[in-house]
Amino acid sequence: MTAEANVGVVGLAAMGGSLARNLAHHGNTVAVYNRSYGRTEKLIAEHGSEGEFRPAETLEEFVASLTKPRTAIIMVKAGEPTDRMIDALADLMEPGDIIVDAGNAYFPDTIRREKAIRARGLHFVGCGVSGGEEGALRGPSMMPGGTEESWTTLKPIFESIAAKAEGEPCVTHIGADGAGHFVKMVHNGIEYSDMQLIAESYDLMRRGLGLEPAEIGDVFEQWNSTELDSYLIEITAEVLHQVDKKTGKPLVDVIVDHAGMKGTGTWTVQSALDLAVPVTGIGEAVFARGLSSQTELRDEAAKRGCAGPDGSLNVAEADRQAFIDDIRQALYASKIVAYAQGFNEITAAAKEHDWDIDLAAVARIWRGGCIIRAKFLNRISDAFESGEANVSLLFAPYFKEAIENAQAAWRRVVARAAEYGVPTPVFASSLSYFDGLRSKRLPAALIQGQRDFFGAHTYGRVDAPGVFHTLWATEDREEIEA
Amino acid sequence: MTAEANVGVVGLAAMGGSLARNLAHHGNTVAVYNRSYGRTEKLIAEHGSEGEFRPAETLEEFVASLTKPRTAIIMVKAGEPTDRMIDALADLMEPGDIIVDAGNAYFPDTIRREKAIRARGLHFVGCGVSGGEEGALRGPSMMPGGTEESWTTLKPIFESIAAKAEGEPCVTHIGADGAGHFVKMVHNGIEYSDMQLIAESYDLMRRGLGLEPAEIGDVFEQWNSTELDSYLIEITAEVLHQVDKKTGKPLVDVIVDHAGMKGTGTWTVQSALDLAVPVTGIGEAVFARGLSSQTELRDEAAKRGCAGPDGSLNVAEADRQAFIDDIRQALYASKIVAYAQGFNEITAAAKEHDWDIDLAAVARIWRGGCIIRAKFLNRISDAFESGEANVSLLFAPYFKEAIENAQAAWRRVVARAAEYGVPTPVFASSLSYFDGLRSKRLPAALIQGQRDFFGAHTYGRVDAPGVFHTLWATEDREEIEA
Repeated sequence: MTAEANVGVVGLAAMGGSLARNLAHHGNTVAVYNRSYGRTEKLIAEHGSEGEFRPAETLEEFVASLTKPRTAIIMVKAGEPTDRMIDALADLMEPGDIIVDAGNAYFPDTIRREKAIRARGLHFVGCGVSGGEEGALRGPSMMPGGTEESWTTLKPIFESIAAKAEGEPCVTHIGADGAGHFVKMVHNGIEYSDMQLIAESYDLMRRGLGLEPAEIGDVFEQWNSTELDSYLIEITAEVLHQVDKKTGKPLVDVIVDHAGMKGTGTWTVQSALDLAVPVTGIGEAVFARGLSSQTELRDEAAKRGCAGPDGSLNVAEADRQAFIDDIRQALYASKIVAYAQGFNEITAAAKEHDWDIDLAAVARIWRGGCIIRAKFLNRISDAFESGEANVSLLFAPYFKEAIENAQAAWRRVVARAAEYGVPTPVFASSLSYFDGLRSKRLPAALIQGQRDFFGAHTYGRVDAPGVFHTLWATEDREEIEA
Repeated sequence: MTAEANVGVVGLAAMGGSLARNLAHHGNTVAVYNRSYGRTEKLIAEHGSEGEFRPAETLEEFVASLTKPRTAIIMVKAGEPTDRMIDALADLMEPGDIIVDAGNAYFPDTIRREKAIRARGLHFVGCGVSGGEEGALRGPSMMPGGTEESWTTLKPIFESIAAKAEGEPCVTHIGADGAGHFVKMVHNGIEYSDMQLIAESYDLMRRGLGLEPAEIGDVFEQWNSTELDSYLIEITAEVLHQVDKKTGKPLVDVIVDHAGMKGTGTWTVQSALDLAVPVTGIGEAVFARGLSSQTELRDEAAKRGCAGPDGSLNVAEADRQAFIDDIRQALYASKIVAYAQGFNEITAAAKEHDWDIDLAAVARIWRGGCIIRAKFLNRISDAFESGEANVSLLFAPYFKEAIENAQAAWRRVVARAAEYGVPTPVFASSLSYFDGLRSKRLPAALIQGQRDFFGAHTYGRVDAPGVFHTLWATEDREEIEA
């Protein structure tokens, strides 16, 4: 085996195979290896003419076919299989070589693996890849972590295959060790809130205003020419326009209403809880999927019947278009809040893990290739670039004004939904967060008083430094410095 | 050292010292040990006359002073110190002896420790203890896990010191290994939502209706004679009536409005996420504390000024009492939802970990001693006893009716708060959960359509078994069985 391949891919299932082809399409010579050689042969038979592939029957051959520093991208099952493959590769590689895990690993695993591989003199790069199979083939958004040194080697390779947004490749070096997988995780969390916000908007129009799916598809199509312009809004219109071949009904009506999930949303919220950063929008979105899939609970609810309003919003025909506009504004405002929260989580994690993350660059590489790609990410990028969004996206003038403009509509939607019984967990939660943030005084002072009462947890005073405790159990209830 | 003590306490700080005294007050002979002997001497000097104590200078003496099966309750710092003390005790003890960890351990740690100690032939019991220092001294609510065999020995000891509710001791064997600490964790999570709901009610009256803290204290005092009768409502009235000695202002106004937390609320939500059980009320409560303590964010918000309504609810003087009644009903309904979610989390964990947990008994032992003790736990206990609450507390006729009665008021409060800018994260989130649960069809069907579109994640059909996928990228978009 001659060393001719500048990059290799291990694991040739849907994602890995697409990534290998994408690499070959862009002038890379690509070593390919799969545990069962049949899959490798199939890739070569079907797509071998698309570029320069170097199929390997064994891992030894695979490594031998790579030029130095050797670069191997792993795309195998998360967990055990990934750990085993990393070890096997590391045993065959030499100091300076690079192992890239392009799967959806949980970032603490990436931190652990990077440390172990670095100790052996090799580079380990946890790399988030968004865009699904189609993205992997045509151009994903890529979020690599790892060392600066490994980035020097990876940059031209990744830039050759990443999606392009306004001419710029959607890839940047995110930061050390687990930073790439962390940012990809938050990307997915934001995707959960984006999708739930669209679902709530749909529900308000369907149940609340009595529109048909195709009509709502038209609305989303129109919204896609507004500030909401994004991939998810675009495909929502497509899904809502789809007619089921078998029944002639709107497809959305024959789909079982149990939303699945695969873990990254859950991780995003769990990590935010560790960091004490509120991500209420993502949290409610994950819980909404959870509720939708609790079959026994929902069946029982249907059987017992919970009395209450039927979800019709009682909007007069003449006011319907105005209310649809209100929903659009509520969606936009809630979306800004969810992004602000997501970026705050990244900031907190960067501080915690000593990652040097350029948030403007993160927003830029999300403009193309990935599921949450959207026009307004240009604005987000600008806001971080200028420093205006340093503390929160909500304070950058463009977004501050956007929310202030949307605010009245947003309140009308949440209020009406509450009154008439349409669940809007993320709309409502985002509004509460915004109002909490606006509050000069929060009732958390009362909570501190309660905690001091029952647990002597102490409190601070607004007019003096120090830590205080009231002797609640004594008759005169003196305050002491604790 | 003669073996005379039927129980021992290791770690004599506030909680451990109080627990040791409580044991001595109730006829137990109590071995006591602390790493620094000074603290042991102080306990004996100050409280030695309250009962039978057997102070030990060394851990060897401590173990030697215990009758068999030896029972040692550890009340030392969580984490490392607890692990070290467990090991040290196990080295000195014999098969059949019992080590109780009465601290706030995270339940996976308890599962791990129980397994390790069981392998050595000893019993390890993770025991949740609620009620703070005062509870430990006068009667806590106790939630022991561990084996049935250890419970036989512990039962008379724990029953002697636990709080009594309507004559019954507030302690029961929760289930194997980590079950006790799990249930205690959820107890604390519910405490978070209870406290946040009270805080939201206070905020609505303060900012929304312009009432003074003492007036609101009067309202809570009245509420304490309604279905809301509980320890937390009672102490809220006390805190709100408290006048600051230094300034003459209401104490709540001089307390810094940053709510602290110690981890159990966070764990409750993280565990619920692992189990895919929505605990939206607890989640929002934890996030609300997080937001309150984000100093930089809140300072910046104050500096930049976020335009919006000022939180006055614009309720006419004549309607004020009616609105206060609405808030009470909103609080009650949201509280029922939070408890329903918490119990669902326990049910899911019991299934996952093969714990045999009697939810009626859990509700019973929360009636006294602990922070969330409340009259309505009698009703909860009845609902589980009868099986009516098996799937959800919300389906038990008593609570179903309670929510149906409170519903209109609840909706008015959430709607008005959204309109006028008072944050009500838990009120609103609980209402969305309730409306989600009531929904025959959820917009999760659209989410499944989106997921199938961008990730080929497939979906189910309402009219046929199987798993389906639409070929979105093809012209005729056929549906295939996946």
